[in-house]
Amino acid sequence: MHYTPAQRDPKADPIRINLLSDTQTRPTPAMREAMARAEVGDEQIGDDPTVNLLCERVADLLGKEAAVFMPSGTMCNVAATLAHCRPGDEILAHATAHIIAREGGAHAALGGFQIMPLPGEDGQFAPETFRAALHPRSRYQPPQTVVSVEQTANIGGGTIWKKAALDEIVEIAGAHGLITHMDGARLLNACVATGISARDMAAGWDSAWIDFSKGLGAPIGGVIAGSRAFIDDVWRWKQRLGGSMRQAGICAAACVYALDHHVDRLADDHANARALARGLSQIDGIEVQEPETNLVFFKPDGAGIAGDKMVEALRKRGVLLAMMDGRIRACTHLDVSAAMIEETVGLVREIVRGA
Amino acid sequence: MHYTPAQRDPKADPIRINLLSDTQTRPTPAMREAMARAEVGDEQIGDDPTVNLLCERVADLLGKEAAVFMPSGTMCNVAATLAHCRPGDEILAHATAHIIAREGGAHAALGGFQIMPLPGEDGQFAPETFRAALHPRSRYQPPQTVVSVEQTANIGGGTIWKKAALDEIVEIAGAHGLITHMDGARLLNACVATGISARDMAAGWDSAWIDFSKGLGAPIGGVIAGSRAFIDDVWRWKQRLGGSMRQAGICAAACVYALDHHVDRLADDHANARALARGLSQIDGIEVQEPETNLVFFKPDGAGIAGDKMVEALRKRGVLLAMMDGRIRACTHLDVSAAMIEETVGLVREIVRGA
Amino acid sequence: MHYTPAQRDPKADPIRINLLSDTQTRPTPAMREAMARAEVGDEQIGDDPTVNLLCERVADLLGKEAAVFMPSGTMCNVAATLAHCRPGDEILAHATAHIIAREGGAHAALGGFQIMPLPGEDGQFAPETFRAALHPRSRYQPPQTVVSVEQTANIGGGTIWKKAALDEIVEIAGAHGLITHMDGARLLNACVATGISARDMAAGWDSAWIDFSKGLGAPIGGVIAGSRAFIDDVWRWKQRLGGSMRQAGICAAACVYALDHHVDRLADDHANARALARGLSQIDGIEVQEPETNLVFFKPDGAGIAGDKMVEALRKRGVLLAMMDGRIRACTHLDVSAAMIEETVGLVREIVRGA
Amino acid sequence: MHYTPAQRDPKADPIRINLLSDTQTRPTPAMREAMARAEVGDEQIGDDPTVNLLCERVADLLGKEAAVFMPSGTMCNVAATLAHCRPGDEILAHATAHIIAREGGAHAALGGFQIMPLPGEDGQFAPETFRAALHPRSRYQPPQTVVSVEQTANIGGGTIWKKAALDEIVEIAGAHGLITHMDGARLLNACVATGISARDMAAGWDSAWIDFSKGLGAPIGGVIAGSRAFIDDVWRWKQRLGGSMRQAGICAAACVYALDHHVDRLADDHANARALARGLSQIDGIEVQEPETNLVFFKPDGAGIAGDKMVEALRKRGVLLAMMDGRIRACTHLDVSAAMIEETVGLVREIVRGA
Repeated sequence: MHYTPAQRDPKADPIRINLLSDTQTRPTPAMREAMARAEVGDEQIGDDPTVNLLCERVADLLGKEAAVFMPSGTMCNVAATLAHCRPGDEILAHATAHIIAREGGAHAALGGFQIMPLPGEDGQFAPETFRAALHPRSRYQPPQTVVSVEQTANIGGGTIWKKAALDEIVEIAGAHGLITHMDGARLLNACVATGISARDMAAGWDSAWIDFSKGLGAPIGGVIAGSRAFIDDVWRWKQRLGGSMRQAGICAAACVYALDHHVDRLADDHANARALARGLSQIDGIEVQEPETNLVFFKPDGAGIAGDKMVEALRKRGVLLAMMDGRIRACTHLDVSAAMIEETVGLVREIVRGA
Repeated sequence: MHYTPAQRDPKADPIRINLLSDTQTRPTPAMREAMARAEVGDEQIGDDPTVNLLCERVADLLGKEAAVFMPSGTMCNVAATLAHCRPGDEILAHATAHIIAREGGAHAALGGFQIMPLPGEDGQFAPETFRAALHPRSRYQPPQTVVSVEQTANIGGGTIWKKAALDEIVEIAGAHGLITHMDGARLLNACVATGISARDMAAGWDSAWIDFSKGLGAPIGGVIAGSRAFIDDVWRWKQRLGGSMRQAGICAAACVYALDHHVDRLADDHANARALARGLSQIDGIEVQEPETNLVFFKPDGAGIAGDKMVEALRKRGVLLAMMDGRIRACTHLDVSAAMIEETVGLVREIVRGA
Repeated sequence: MHYTPAQRDPKADPIRINLLSDTQTRPTPAMREAMARAEVGDEQIGDDPTVNLLCERVADLLGKEAAVFMPSGTMCNVAATLAHCRPGDEILAHATAHIIAREGGAHAALGGFQIMPLPGEDGQFAPETFRAALHPRSRYQPPQTVVSVEQTANIGGGTIWKKAALDEIVEIAGAHGLITHMDGARLLNACVATGISARDMAAGWDSAWIDFSKGLGAPIGGVIAGSRAFIDDVWRWKQRLGGSMRQAGICAAACVYALDHHVDRLADDHANARALARGLSQIDGIEVQEPETNLVFFKPDGAGIAGDKMVEALRKRGVLLAMMDGRIRACTHLDVSAAMIEETVGLVREIVRGA
Repeated sequence: MHYTPAQRDPKADPIRINLLSDTQTRPTPAMREAMARAEVGDEQIGDDPTVNLLCERVADLLGKEAAVFMPSGTMCNVAATLAHCRPGDEILAHATAHIIAREGGAHAALGGFQIMPLPGEDGQFAPETFRAALHPRSRYQPPQTVVSVEQTANIGGGTIWKKAALDEIVEIAGAHGLITHMDGARLLNACVATGISARDMAAGWDSAWIDFSKGLGAPIGGVIAGSRAFIDDVWRWKQRLGGSMRQAGICAAACVYALDHHVDRLADDHANARALARGLSQIDGIEVQEPETNLVFFKPDGAGIAGDKMVEALRKRGVLLAMMDGRIRACTHLDVSAAMIEETVGLVREIVRGA
């Protein structure tokens, strides 16, 4: 669960190739243009037409009754559990899930929820692992209220939860009265990679959200969807969390643009990720996890160089990556071209040779 | 404390004059242009140059060590108390303060803080009232940790806390070990109205923030400032609350633009508010609170028409206002001209005549 | 709301007359005998016959479906609001209520609830005050969930809520969907003083509890009653709060004994309180609130001596009382005889003469 | 972590041999006598001499500055983390620890703390596992504030944390700025079994507590010890949690009696546990964990009978045990004699034969 973003001095070594994260994408000129022209209103009182349009689009995309715009994916997760749970409830999630590992303990801090980390390969728990973790209601243990999956599983390697596994989890949850929550930060990557629609992927999940500031390339925002009653409650928590904004249509316009222009092209990121993995795996001593989407995890230790040394050496050469849980993570996105991938592989080879 | 925004059907009666709130301002073409051209980065890892510039500007403006950008003023308040207090602590504030009356119980819900509402005219408590509310440390009562003021006092009539009162509160707080927090949602209105600098107004206050989506006319954002240690802690809470964004420079660019172009012109809003109050007070039976800034509270009951009827009648004529605590509130801002004020007064006169 | 118990060095000045609080009562020999002989089991798993008997007795007394034993009255209040509310909910109570003024901010700290203090004479708010404080549901304000009364109103002077006022509050609460909670720390004092049964007093209140460690003279314990579903939820919170005990029948036996032997005799405490008030009121310059139950509040300032000086002077003479909110409080109970009252009046007269 | 106490109908099958838990002990006649004669006062204001004596005794026993009496061991744990942590902090403990598995999610619900479950054999984590779970301070992860051990490790089999492991954990914690907390529910069992003093076992631990309602045989109570500043803070939380009682000396007297008379005899419980384990292990197909203290875990599955069937069969014969995490747990204590152990072994043999 240890993660250290490669903090950098932007004034020193300029970054030419930014593989740190798909959150690094800059809005394109066309996206900026869409933002500049956005029709806006006061979103806090339901009066921003662009935000309203975006919410309708996402509710429809995910097959839910309603949706709400949020300043971040983290707020989608936090407001969702606040709406779903009471203090002392238990949420079941994979041990590497964003809600455990990357949100600063927010679900405990703000909601009083205990998260039960489930084990499993590649950031995913098996449905049977979930079933085995359920216990009968008892005064001694927290009520188990929510099961959460992260599609794709980031720290697990950007792996895709299979539709069959999702369905099985929904079925088990239903049989035991648990609410299902899908952290869909990179859900559309999974959809583009598998050809399964977002609506199908989210079917049976009580709440689901997508992030626009990752591979979709918008500067700000996530949208969470669910039943109307759920969304009403999420709105109350959004207000308390300070997520209610004003003329947010400016930001929402970028998200609408992304839905129209940046979904299909996620396939390019996946192709680039595969090219990177292929290139790296041909270097002696580099151990690479086969990418399913836009995340490539690898370890250079077998080549006689530690991961953090490799990250440092690449940064000096203008390539930015992150250490995550002892491995190097490279993330492809809108601002990363096939040529950059090729160059990166070449630089890694050069560094390994010099090691 | 009762507030009902005049919910409206935007497809029906078009609004020509929007006096509902200064949060209704739309970004101007020049502001949109500044946003479209903004240099951006990943603000969550400190990499967005426009956000960084904005934070430096506000820290300097308020005379504090550091500052952080937030998606809303509510998050400025919530993150501040989360950073200042421990659960079970008591915050002292006026009974009509935003943190009590308008944030959905967030400070209790998210932080576990008890707010002690202090009485006082026009949204302000006297320093002696504050002093009298302090009690010796005891196991039976919550530790009193923070005193908060709202400059200007919104529900109090947009009234300005006098510098001398602020200083006295700071002194009492210091003598009793309390932290001081200034909700500066409309602090710059107070500064423009009095000629006192924001730095002087905020002097002695451990935390202070300004809102850019009110009179300053930006679509999104507040910036909170304080000591470096405080801001570090606020950052941790911003992350948990889901307030960490990505290429937020787009929004911050509007705020920088507002600092450069929309501060001095708040004087126009104040002039318009005074004109409105003057006009209304010349109508028989209308009782008007003398405005100090850009908020005008009035009651038409003496003219034989209830407040909510007046609001409804004006809405039918294309003018939008709010009922707040039994009075009508009109708010002047960037999108409200002197001619609109004149027209509004005329319409009120017409409605009263017909009553 | 300021309260300073007269902290004392028990090795110095022995206390002959303890009017500090009815919590000071020591178990009588007969009560100790009942405790020593108590049949016990593991109360945490529902196996202690004496605890079970006590809970049945109290549920019946208060006309509720079920009840649970607690180590203190404070835990009755805290577990009740934890069961009734969700974080961010609002509880309405008198400004001097125990839940606001004497429980260390527990309801905010542990549950995230905001308490709205209502004004009113003698520790009681008028039903109309309650009605006026209700607001329509809105995202900006906390949901108003519980109204709480304290029977008798301690800091209000041990005053008795009239049955008609209680009924009216129940009716208003019902019309607005609020839950009703009765802090019955001294409910039986009110019942003995008025002749109204506890069942009638608690009729219509969703939760109600009585304290056994006050006038009833048991060393430990309160019992809270309500619907079976509510009590199930209270049990869950009792477990979390650490209130689940083991062979608690030892303590419960004292409570059962108190129900059998110490209820009717509360009339003696009330007679003693009236005698004390009468005696004090005959001393020039002493201002006394007419007692309704076992609490006597008075101010000696008119006789040329400040309250705290009087408390100190009495303590030196072996009489213990408390300052509470600027007045002196004397509390009669099991360990206070008519002769002690007479002696106390004499000592006050003597101190006033010497002032 | 699944635990189902064998809920029983006390009116049906009388229990002759109660191996369910050492919490089932009934106070002995001599202990009842000590309680009946206890000198008492108001413990909430520090005035109960027997409670004060007990706290001094335990502070001394554990080598700490001060101590406070609590109605339960759970409240010792809950108040300790509330005093040590801020919301959003992380506590590290073994996955089977009482604070995770048996306190209803209290630490999340009441304090907002996230507990990181550590793996390890027999309810204990290796010091290296602890060290590996530490991460650098980051805004994305909860601050790691407390490491907690449970001496003995209940669900781990009543195993004893070795002094060397405790010391190593203290050292690692110190190096990383973590607070150390010892849940000493059965600490004295560990001390009696090893000959190491409680003071030595608790040395270096910032907070430690012992439970009196387990093997020590008192009906109610735990006592937690630490620095004076810590105990002051615990007192504040005890008040909020509703753990402040009145004439608690009645209960404390049983604890003082237990310290004087029931510590050394824990060796008898351990001998009985060993005898039980020996007897059971001689039955074909019964798999027994070698007991270190007073807890015996075994599985009868190899003998052709499932655990829950065995528990049921024994209950019909008047012997009470619990299923815990798929195994049967037998607990020896004050009310369990060597003859009862012999009889139990005989009954298990009989049931296995009939299976």
